[in-house]
Amino acid sequence: MKATEKTMDTIVSLCKNRGFIYSGSEIYGGLSNTWDYGPLGVELKNNVKKAWMKKFVQESTYNVGLDSAILMNPEVWVATGHVGGFSDPLMDCKDCKTRHRADKLIEDFTGESADGWSNEKMMAFIKEHHIKCPNCGSENFTDIRQFNLMFKTFQGVTEDAKNTVYLRPETAQGIFVNFQNVQRTTRRKLPFGICQVGKSFRNEITPGNFTFRTREFEQMECEFFCKPDTDLEWFKYWKDFCENWLYELGLTKENLRLRDHRPEELSFYSKATTDIEYLFPFGWGELWGIADRTNYDLSRHQEHSGKDLTYFDQEANEHYIPYVIEPSLGADRVTLAFLCDAYDEEIVDEAKKDTRVVLHLHPALAPYKAAVLPLSKKLGEPAKEIYAKLSKHFMIDYDETGSIGKRYRRQDEIGTPFCITYDFDSSEDGCVTVRDRDTMAQERLKIEELDAWLQEKVDF
Amino acid sequence: MKATEKTMDTIVSLCKNRGFIYSGSEIYGGLSNTWDYGPLGVELKNNVKKAWMKKFVQESTYNVGLDSAILMNPEVWVATGHVGGFSDPLMDCKDCKTRHRADKLIEDFTGESADGWSNEKMMAFIKEHHIKCPNCGSENFTDIRQFNLMFKTFQGVTEDAKNTVYLRPETAQGIFVNFQNVQRTTRRKLPFGICQVGKSFRNEITPGNFTFRTREFEQMECEFFCKPDTDLEWFKYWKDFCENWLYELGLTKENLRLRDHRPEELSFYSKATTDIEYLFPFGWGELWGIADRTNYDLSRHQEHSGKDLTYFDQEANEHYIPYVIEPSLGADRVTLAFLCDAYDEEIVDEAKKDTRVVLHLHPALAPYKAAVLPLSKKLGEPAKEIYAKLSKHFMIDYDETGSIGKRYRRQDEIGTPFCITYDFDSSEDGCVTVRDRDTMAQERLKIEELDAWLQEKVDF
Repeated sequence: MKATEKTMDTIVSLCKNRGFIYSGSEIYGGLSNTWDYGPLGVELKNNVKKAWMKKFVQESTYNVGLDSAILMNPEVWVATGHVGGFSDPLMDCKDCKTRHRADKLIEDFTGESADGWSNEKMMAFIKEHHIKCPNCGSENFTDIRQFNLMFKTFQGVTEDAKNTVYLRPETAQGIFVNFQNVQRTTRRKLPFGICQVGKSFRNEITPGNFTFRTREFEQMECEFFCKPDTDLEWFKYWKDFCENWLYELGLTKENLRLRDHRPEELSFYSKATTDIEYLFPFGWGELWGIADRTNYDLSRHQEHSGKDLTYFDQEANEHYIPYVIEPSLGADRVTLAFLCDAYDEEIVDEAKKDTRVVLHLHPALAPYKAAVLPLSKKLGEPAKEIYAKLSKHFMIDYDETGSIGKRYRRQDEIGTPFCITYDFDSSEDGCVTVRDRDTMAQERLKIEELDAWLQEKVDF
Repeated sequence: MKATEKTMDTIVSLCKNRGFIYSGSEIYGGLSNTWDYGPLGVELKNNVKKAWMKKFVQESTYNVGLDSAILMNPEVWVATGHVGGFSDPLMDCKDCKTRHRADKLIEDFTGESADGWSNEKMMAFIKEHHIKCPNCGSENFTDIRQFNLMFKTFQGVTEDAKNTVYLRPETAQGIFVNFQNVQRTTRRKLPFGICQVGKSFRNEITPGNFTFRTREFEQMECEFFCKPDTDLEWFKYWKDFCENWLYELGLTKENLRLRDHRPEELSFYSKATTDIEYLFPFGWGELWGIADRTNYDLSRHQEHSGKDLTYFDQEANEHYIPYVIEPSLGADRVTLAFLCDAYDEEIVDEAKKDTRVVLHLHPALAPYKAAVLPLSKKLGEPAKEIYAKLSKHFMIDYDETGSIGKRYRRQDEIGTPFCITYDFDSSEDGCVTVRDRDTMAQERLKIEELDAWLQEKVDF
């Protein structure tokens, strides 16, 4: 039973107070919307990344991994059109001097996406519907200007155009430029995929909603290369695969929706795109974009680099540029979704007005897999032995302060699935009491079996 | 027995051909000294990072993790002196127009470090000893100019000083600015440490030696906070701890040395610094710097931010700024050291002139923990079942092409510690032949026991 509605404020506050996520550079007043993952946050996010790598690479017979550099030859971004076209339509309010994204103004007004609208169409719409500055209410906007979203920096000694490089705005292109390297060295035949986890950077004009939209963010992208004409079938395969990954990790079905892009929303090179969206406390937000990118990226790179990027299909005895399905997931976003989804305030005892905050995280994602609690400080030594033994294989917390009840609640709040209490009987019967976070049920387990028991529980 | 001496060329070539490390942006002619980790490289490097996190965080009763943003408030770098002072002394050859680091010219000449020398001292030394341009042999140098090593970029819409931010040149400061956040939320008492793995960027004028010195690199840093006057004792503790970590992962003792900084080499705030160096094919190179940084960083941040960063020691009933021991390890460097150390060309049979290339990587670091090989393609189905089962817990390769002997050699070359062959007896006796990479010995093991057997082998 729920005590109150969950809001972003309660989630953000839990994150800050329990060490999941802090404001970046906080002692200097922060830096716009940057965030640092604390001791629990780094475990949670690493577990999310591991769970992705496990299903997309380790257990996959199709895919392999890659970790390409953030700084790439700028010609990469010329080829992809990012230098020329990767920009936001911005307009200033002449009265209050605030800056706004024209497409967002329209979306806030209509509740519909304005993706793919021309500047002229947006300008006309804004004027026609008298859309106002959200800050001061004026309608006195400048014209729309395109603002490139790539962070630019200079490599080498002089700050000139020749030395300009960009922070990658997506990890995907690191995969495309290595398509042949990977194919050659792994001797893979189509279909196969290349997966990468890494930071990307976009100079967003309006970052916000906690870690949902940040200028520096982490992606988990897979580029899956397949034979032309098999692409739509693989598109469906990966769409289902991604959806199942989220369910297997416990995300609630009613908080997820799949949104197929309408034809007019699709990028010109894409045959099909579906967003998997999650219902955050602030509304629906995209977690995963699954796109049929056709042979667009490899073709662009072939043309621009002058290198032959075709694949030789031995069976069909022909050369062609593979088609590509791209499932692209935001690591920070999906971590936030798992946090929001797991958060609950439960009434434990209505009469006593006893409530608890609990994170129902999947054991594979929980920062600590278990907490070892000596019933009394006198039992610290044998309890620490259990802690040391389990720590060989799992991230384990140790807590000996406060009543057992208080310690349970502290662990509930950070999502620890199991509390292992060493009590005064333990030395005699070689057992401990294991308390389950979700059911609050307790059972007595043999100490020597804890390791295998826990392994089974956290398996994913 | 060794067939030939190992050189960087053979290591680089193995890396490129087997998918450990490729040139970055290769199809566009690369981008100075950037590198992309391929399917095997990303596994190896991730295993190195996991091994570090395991010993420094998971099994440590002292330390917790952190993952702070790459983009930080620029005041951080003003406080630390990076904006003012983090620079290389550069001089140009007026004749051939090449640019050089003055300290490196001196070091190449003397074989000793010129750390801490003033520009005047370096200039005088270069003139006095007639040090020549390594490119053209001229002595016609410009004066020394300081060149800041931080990559700078612009956040927001305009490219002006107000919007300048830097790519962090070290992960350490993300830890220092979060000292109080972590202490408060984990309720830790001194001594305790905060550990972080992440990318840093330095605009080196002379990157080189493969992945040893790159502009974009990954660090694994621990800042260990302790009571003043206990620092030298903790300095020794962490120095030993770091050294042991390398040995436990199999690094050869004779290829490692500890180099204590001489008093004149020490940063002015440091009481003691030791470098752990590895003997690469190109010479000795620093892997790990372990430094007693005193209370320098926290004091600087306290002064510059105006925030009270003291710690309240309940036992002593006093406030003070903790002292800090920093073990700082380069993830790319130590990965390269493991690769170089593991590489061997062995004469298997002198009469037959049969040699093999083998990577004697610690099983915890090896990209694949085992390879499953059906003796014949007809045995593919049951062999794939073993592959699928083991893949639940380990990174496993599957290979059914070529003779078993050839497949063994392919796995030797990429460091796979065990080859599991499913043969025509396997369906009858429920066993497989497991061949050891290092000894080349074979043993017959029950299929149902493989999982536990392998777990024990890869434990670290």
